[in-house]
Amino acid sequence: MRTDNRNNDELRPIHMERDYVKHPEGSVLITVGETKVICNASIEDRVPPFMRNQGKGWVTAEYAMLPRATQQRNIRESSKGKVSGRTMEIQRLIGRALRSVVDLEKFGERTVWVDCDVIQADGGTRTAAITGAFVAMTLAFGELLKQNTIKELPIKDYLAATSVGVLKDETILDLCYEEDSQAQVDMNIVMTGNGEFVELQGTGEEATFSYTQLQEMVGLAQKGIKELFDQQKEILGDLNKHIDRNRQQNS
Amino acid sequence: MRTDNRNNDELRPIHMERDYVKHPEGSVLITVGETKVICNASIEDRVPPFMRNQGKGWVTAEYAMLPRATQQRNIRESSKGKVSGRTMEIQRLIGRALRSVVDLEKFGERTVWVDCDVIQADGGTRTAAITGAFVAMTLAFGELLKQNTIKELPIKDYLAATSVGVLKDETILDLCYEEDSQAQVDMNIVMTGNGEFVELQGTGEEATFSYTQLQEMVGLAQKGIKELFDQQKEILGDLNKHIDRNRQQNS
Amino acid sequence: MRTDNRNNDELRPIHMERDYVKHPEGSVLITVGETKVICNASIEDRVPPFMRNQGKGWVTAEYAMLPRATQQRNIRESSKGKVSGRTMEIQRLIGRALRSVVDLEKFGERTVWVDCDVIQADGGTRTAAITGAFVAMTLAFGELLKQNTIKELPIKDYLAATSVGVLKDETILDLCYEEDSQAQVDMNIVMTGNGEFVELQGTGEEATFSYTQLQEMVGLAQKGIKELFDQQKEILGDLNKHIDRNRQQNS
Amino acid sequence: MRTDNRNNDELRPIHMERDYVKHPEGSVLITVGETKVICNASIEDRVPPFMRNQGKGWVTAEYAMLPRATQQRNIRESSKGKVSGRTMEIQRLIGRALRSVVDLEKFGERTVWVDCDVIQADGGTRTAAITGAFVAMTLAFGELLKQNTIKELPIKDYLAATSVGVLKDETILDLCYEEDSQAQVDMNIVMTGNGEFVELQGTGEEATFSYTQLQEMVGLAQKGIKELFDQQKEILGDLNKHIDRNRQQNS
Amino acid sequence: MRTDNRNNDELRPIHMERDYVKHPEGSVLITVGETKVICNASIEDRVPPFMRNQGKGWVTAEYAMLPRATQQRNIRESSKGKVSGRTMEIQRLIGRALRSVVDLEKFGERTVWVDCDVIQADGGTRTAAITGAFVAMTLAFGELLKQNTIKELPIKDYLAATSVGVLKDETILDLCYEEDSQAQVDMNIVMTGNGEFVELQGTGEEATFSYTQLQEMVGLAQKGIKELFDQQKEILGDLNKHIDRNRQQNS
Amino acid sequence: MRTDNRNNDELRPIHMERDYVKHPEGSVLITVGETKVICNASIEDRVPPFMRNQGKGWVTAEYAMLPRATQQRNIRESSKGKVSGRTMEIQRLIGRALRSVVDLEKFGERTVWVDCDVIQADGGTRTAAITGAFVAMTLAFGELLKQNTIKELPIKDYLAATSVGVLKDETILDLCYEEDSQAQVDMNIVMTGNGEFVELQGTGEEATFSYTQLQEMVGLAQKGIKELFDQQKEILGDLNKHIDRNRQQNS
Repeated sequence: MRTDNRNNDELRPIHMERDYVKHPEGSVLITVGETKVICNASIEDRVPPFMRNQGKGWVTAEYAMLPRATQQRNIRESSKGKVSGRTMEIQRLIGRALRSVVDLEKFGERTVWVDCDVIQADGGTRTAAITGAFVAMTLAFGELLKQNTIKELPIKDYLAATSVGVLKDETILDLCYEEDSQAQVDMNIVMTGNGEFVELQGTGEEATFSYTQLQEMVGLAQKGIKELFDQQKEILGDLNKHIDRNRQQNS
Repeated sequence: MRTDNRNNDELRPIHMERDYVKHPEGSVLITVGETKVICNASIEDRVPPFMRNQGKGWVTAEYAMLPRATQQRNIRESSKGKVSGRTMEIQRLIGRALRSVVDLEKFGERTVWVDCDVIQADGGTRTAAITGAFVAMTLAFGELLKQNTIKELPIKDYLAATSVGVLKDETILDLCYEEDSQAQVDMNIVMTGNGEFVELQGTGEEATFSYTQLQEMVGLAQKGIKELFDQQKEILGDLNKHIDRNRQQNS
Repeated sequence: MRTDNRNNDELRPIHMERDYVKHPEGSVLITVGETKVICNASIEDRVPPFMRNQGKGWVTAEYAMLPRATQQRNIRESSKGKVSGRTMEIQRLIGRALRSVVDLEKFGERTVWVDCDVIQADGGTRTAAITGAFVAMTLAFGELLKQNTIKELPIKDYLAATSVGVLKDETILDLCYEEDSQAQVDMNIVMTGNGEFVELQGTGEEATFSYTQLQEMVGLAQKGIKELFDQQKEILGDLNKHIDRNRQQNS
Repeated sequence: MRTDNRNNDELRPIHMERDYVKHPEGSVLITVGETKVICNASIEDRVPPFMRNQGKGWVTAEYAMLPRATQQRNIRESSKGKVSGRTMEIQRLIGRALRSVVDLEKFGERTVWVDCDVIQADGGTRTAAITGAFVAMTLAFGELLKQNTIKELPIKDYLAATSVGVLKDETILDLCYEEDSQAQVDMNIVMTGNGEFVELQGTGEEATFSYTQLQEMVGLAQKGIKELFDQQKEILGDLNKHIDRNRQQNS
Repeated sequence: MRTDNRNNDELRPIHMERDYVKHPEGSVLITVGETKVICNASIEDRVPPFMRNQGKGWVTAEYAMLPRATQQRNIRESSKGKVSGRTMEIQRLIGRALRSVVDLEKFGERTVWVDCDVIQADGGTRTAAITGAFVAMTLAFGELLKQNTIKELPIKDYLAATSVGVLKDETILDLCYEEDSQAQVDMNIVMTGNGEFVELQGTGEEATFSYTQLQEMVGLAQKGIKELFDQQKEILGDLNKHIDRNRQQNS
Repeated sequence: MRTDNRNNDELRPIHMERDYVKHPEGSVLITVGETKVICNASIEDRVPPFMRNQGKGWVTAEYAMLPRATQQRNIRESSKGKVSGRTMEIQRLIGRALRSVVDLEKFGERTVWVDCDVIQADGGTRTAAITGAFVAMTLAFGELLKQNTIKELPIKDYLAATSVGVLKDETILDLCYEEDSQAQVDMNIVMTGNGEFVELQGTGEEATFSYTQLQEMVGLAQKGIKELFDQQKEILGDLNKHIDRNRQQNS
């Protein structure tokens, strides 16, 4: 039996609150169980130096936690004067994942910055951030569409992520912090709406995992991520039509 | 007439949501008009090096903004690798203000860290942070009291802050961002429940101000801060009794 | 009785030595009691990025102490790799104060850097720095005038600063280090020649202060700053005429 | 046909030179095709703060490239004053992987630092580093054994890594730089001697990958890593006996 | 008798391996006794800001050690976030020395970066670096010549360096680490092919040295450096002709 | 003829003002021509970690320039967040030089910090700093003597420094900035009272120098440094006796 009485293949309750912060072009507060992440997407009218003069856009992400998002207070990275390895790894992951479903050719020399700030952490902050960041980014592109700055939504497919793992030799879906801290294996999986993989990162620091366990974990993730897509569609409203049309054209 | 139709001596609507984040010993989301600040107070069981072996506690504050709390996205201070002068000035101010109403002798060698994170900014973030930080800190001390770690609440008096200024030659209370960016003079005032001043910082970058204007601004601030104390009392519930008792003993 | 036998409303002896360092466009060594600050003003023929292409100039200040300006040696900020919060707060204050009496429209896209380096500290270094920085800056503008680079002195009024405070319940003027370290309240006040306020920063870390004490402190500061203007006029020589003419035009 | 005429399931030539640098307790130069990495293992007689007083050891890794290991010169991370996200990600990966086959309980409060310095890069530097680092670490533990500092080799199993990917829709083993830069999918896999997974990191930045492709890539990696184990055994000599004995005891 | 049985005026065995790393325009592994330094020269098609628009080139050097090049592991400078004073001093020395024999006017607005990375240290790393860096730089210019990017080799003369010192009151040539750590005086001398001095840096931290000892040390260095020139000529092959021609023109 | 009409073997006018700053244990303002350096020596009652528990003291130096000590304003190293290579080189040189005449065994586990801050620069700042730092350090040790903290002055000999160079093929003593910036060769020489060398650093960036020129430069330096010793003796007063006694005992 899991700590919160869930079945092994059961996600925690998901909620997304649109327009949570008023200034950003796209803003969502995503809640996954007790994990809460503010995802704000900002449009900047230029691209980083390595992308200049190619007529293409760029998407990048930043991730941070409030000092007391966790059980113990963490020192701010601004006070330490540097970003930790863990933070860099996560923000690089979010950025790569988002770019996999965006058509960079279709929104000019603009950068979408997606800021994922964890207000409260209880496991799975990076996968919650990806799931919410996709929505915030899509809303921001929706704004550009509304202003006629771009002509079509440059989103090729849906994108969501969850974690799976092995705990006491059972494979389970969507680990909360308590489970995560005891798990033998921890795997983060990012998928697109058409069922393809974008990222798959499995780690067994104290333990190792077999091919069979790998297959089981992938199966659980596929089930969970499908449910996340339903939530995303609900909150995106009319923007779904644009994504669905793009998916048909690409297939 | 002010941008949001307020009278010159009228505060914006205030709201405080207690226990906004679950991990901290004390947590409040304070909303002043469109300005929103999460104030989290954490208790650490040791003091910084310069305070060691004196049998006393310490109170310190940190302040930050989400990158897109503002109309334009700001670069994260962790990415820049250093904390800006503005941030340092504000967090030093919050810390000093909180310490003015705390009896450091009465909670052992502990540090209270109060993190003020601005989720959405519309002027007056530092004064909102002080007003909310006082509540978060008091709630955290309340937890220590409940756990019998301390025997009395080490809070000598209430503490709140607001801004006043001169705009088009009129003195006004509680400036929103639009007003603040056009004001000739900007003054932040921190007061205690017994009507004494803790900090008073007035600045006229483009302009200067007369003695009469100084008196008028102080008068407006006194009125506004009294209303903030009412809000604090409402949210602190039973902890008021402890503060009121301490006030009587000190007078 | 004060430590150095002064009356409560008495400044320490002031001295300013013009052209103390040979390279800068304007240079002054200001001595206030035992506090000594070298103020050097440098003209740079460009403005910072945020001021470009507006046809206006900029004035900024930097403040530092020699490691052994104080009783205990301080670690250099260059060795620590970062500027402290205290230093940032002070240099932002000096810059803002100077800009309040300068007409940025009248000297083209130039920056005046005013470096205030404390050689010996005995309280009141920031207010001594402001008083000396005004003279150094004015001398530097005087050089531009002499070279016909500008046509009129872009100084609208005199500017000086002093500190006041409450010590053993008495309000006193111009605190030396020993007084400052024991004071209940410490207030720095910056004023212009016409008696208006530019900055007013009062702090009671351990204590608080009443409205009456605020009024008394402001009164002492007004008296002291008037005496500082006399010193400034003496050392500025012919440049006074330009300032006086500008003051008449503005009134 | 691949750039260097290899079959899709063929590794590049592997070579390991033992005792390449004279000072470290364990030292190997590993060559995988044109990729060359110096792996030096150092024993330090203490552990990092978070591991103190637990009677256990720690294993950590650092990774760097010479500025001109690559086709274009890279700026040194010491000159930039910070370690890049990519470097942090890689050194965290190497450290985690090594710890998965080490029994931290069996070598006292010591730290093994494994430095992986890339002299020449041609794709697969992180997997070559893991394969070489395992050998350098094992040699260093062999030294402790020889000096009777420890009684048994704290290595539970062999450890090696390789990369697989999808290029022009074909799944291939051990990508060189030219292949890697064009691949649709890139996956790094770390395995132990008993055929279990330690890490599996698959990324499709521009593209995505299907479940079938995932299975094919895993199959190729299993084949390649087996060949790497043969190389490791050859160079480790007598130390194999210790590892084999530990493997039997654990099974 | 010296630790390794050398005569006082005897160099350690020297070896240089050309094209040690494949990517750089010029690459040499120089071995002086047990000291090994990889010297890689890279050509960049632009110059640093302070050299722009002068039609001239620039030569600069960087120096680093692998963490375990020494008997005790050193913390990486990238992890410390700053380059040590010793490293800066050495790389400034190498750069200055190289520029003394290069005609900056003759290769356009290009920068030659010479990276000297110490793989194994046993005394004399900075002088070995200079001797090897000269060869790597010359090979890189040779590449530009071969590609017809430049018309003549911009090298005015040979350049090599060695160390001399006083140990137990005897003056000795080319100190190994053990000798260096016990020496009373340590002097590094850089000379050109025509017997002139480029740099001469003598230090007696615990001791001092007389004029006679200075003369003896200079004499030993002159002898040793001549032998280094022979090694350089052997490895440079056909490029010698260009240098010899330039030397004749300059004399 | 030299810029300031001096003979080739003539020093600029030297002046030293004792007790220039009131707080340090030893303080001197040294003026060499137009170069002015404040040298402050501070005693700290502990040694750096690498010197602990050896019963010995340590001497270290720091060097900095005011931003406008030079003709062009320099950015503060504290603002840049790092100390330049030039600064590090100079402060390491000053520290080494001072230690060569101090008996570290004779003042307990104390550190002498000598801060050399250049107020105005006109060439030769590092040699002026050494000459002044010796006096400040000796005065600080004199204080310890007066307080009976130490029993004898731990100074073995006098120490002073000057620069020599080659300009238009003439060897000259004590170069001012204008000469220094045009010189072919620049050499800094540090000597002790008994005529021995401590440091000798000669550099010919654009040019090289012959053995004859080396001898001439050394001769000029010997002459100039003797004159500096006379100045030091005059200002040190009674402390000379202690140094002279120590010199006799050592010879």
